[in-house]
Amino acid sequence: MSILLTNDDGIYAPGLAALHRELQGLGEVHVVAPESEQSAVGHAISLMTPLRVKQVALDGGLRGWAVSGTPADCVKIALAELLPEPPELVVSGINLGPNVGINVLYSGTVSAATEAAILGVRGLAVSLNTYKDPDWAGAASLTRELIAGLRDLPGWAPEVCLNINLPALPQERIRGVRVTRQDTGPLVERFQRRVDPREHVYYWLAEINERRDLEPDTDYGALAAGYVSITPIHHDLTHYPSFNSLKGLDRP
Amino acid sequence: MSILLTNDDGIYAPGLAALHRELQGLGEVHVVAPESEQSAVGHAISLMTPLRVKQVALDGGLRGWAVSGTPADCVKIALAELLPEPPELVVSGINLGPNVGINVLYSGTVSAATEAAILGVRGLAVSLNTYKDPDWAGAASLTRELIAGLRDLPGWAPEVCLNINLPALPQERIRGVRVTRQDTGPLVERFQRRVDPREHVYYWLAEINERRDLEPDTDYGALAAGYVSITPIHHDLTHYPSFNSLKGLDRP
Repeated sequence: MSILLTNDDGIYAPGLAALHRELQGLGEVHVVAPESEQSAVGHAISLMTPLRVKQVALDGGLRGWAVSGTPADCVKIALAELLPEPPELVVSGINLGPNVGINVLYSGTVSAATEAAILGVRGLAVSLNTYKDPDWAGAASLTRELIAGLRDLPGWAPEVCLNINLPALPQERIRGVRVTRQDTGPLVERFQRRVDPREHVYYWLAEINERRDLEPDTDYGALAAGYVSITPIHHDLTHYPSFNSLKGLDRP
Repeated sequence: MSILLTNDDGIYAPGLAALHRELQGLGEVHVVAPESEQSAVGHAISLMTPLRVKQVALDGGLRGWAVSGTPADCVKIALAELLPEPPELVVSGINLGPNVGINVLYSGTVSAATEAAILGVRGLAVSLNTYKDPDWAGAASLTRELIAGLRDLPGWAPEVCLNINLPALPQERIRGVRVTRQDTGPLVERFQRRVDPREHVYYWLAEINERRDLEPDTDYGALAAGYVSITPIHHDLTHYPSFNSLKGLDRP
């Protein structure tokens, strides 16, 4: 099995290194990842600036390409220029912090998996539900198990990518696996207004992740209840119910 | 009617200025737009860097706020900090160049309208199908007509935003209006490999827009046939058909 591994925390991130170690047990792993952290870049791609690529060799045997761009850029250039042939699977992660609900739209991690699906390759994004003291080895081991079970799944269409979120719990305390829908509940967020040393005002976006209502069939809800959440994601943004109710706009 | 106007080409872009002139005929227009061009940023938001906001007054009477961020940042900070109360409508554009098919995912213009929908405000994105010699006044006039017809439409749910693409044709040659779905056909794209003056290799993404098969009910197809395309877009990326076929993954 040929796997392209990428992320949005950058090629030097420990979540990527841990996953690299585990995935080598499944096949040949090619690493093409951003050279610097790209959190919350969404599905950005580089049109106005060129991409530079450099080969990287890290302790622990990880060899790969660092790209001066976004996660979506990495997938595009890996498939077009860097890999000898298209991989069977693109894996993005493991991200430090969850990617659930509305935040899926802002996620560079998920956009890499979506980009794979756009280009006809099965993709999955993996995120760990913590911002501190992550157990990368445990999360990577669980991810490998999940991938081994998913790879030949007939219900997984290649135009659909999977957004996987892992609880930050010891394996014996993880309650199971749930296929979920993306939560679409409203964001609870605000800006902090600050003043810099030159007395200019600036703003930081704060508290983007706070949700109160946790429905059990959503990514948010399943993760909060201690389940691995697997959400099938696609790149057709059309809202078909409106497609019907707006048809009266057609002229002539 | 209170309108928030933004874009991804930046607050100094002529497409925004033209739309500002026209929309003043519909109500009070607040401008909050990126201070520099933000093309292809997708749904990026600024988490690692703060936002700075400055007031701008341009020839022609346009007053607004220039934000050191992305289109989605502009909508967030406008609603949270800058506007006295939430607008009834967020309009993003007019973009130089179309936003159809897979490119909708990469579009900063569309992401501003999506962000509005996320925050509970009706949003629409407007793009003009040309990269040269745009007739901004004609496109803005047509946009105003479309908005006047849309604003009280019962079939337009606030959680859905509209992605409008205008043909670059004289008004009498525009064949009509079509409610469309997003084309999901594969991209035809490649990288140009170049060498810089210091003999380092770099890559430019090229030819991202070339599609051959134009189905008449898609955004691509309708625009190519000379129609205004209106696509209802939402931010629930769940692929529900897979949701059912993957349910067997649930454990226990």
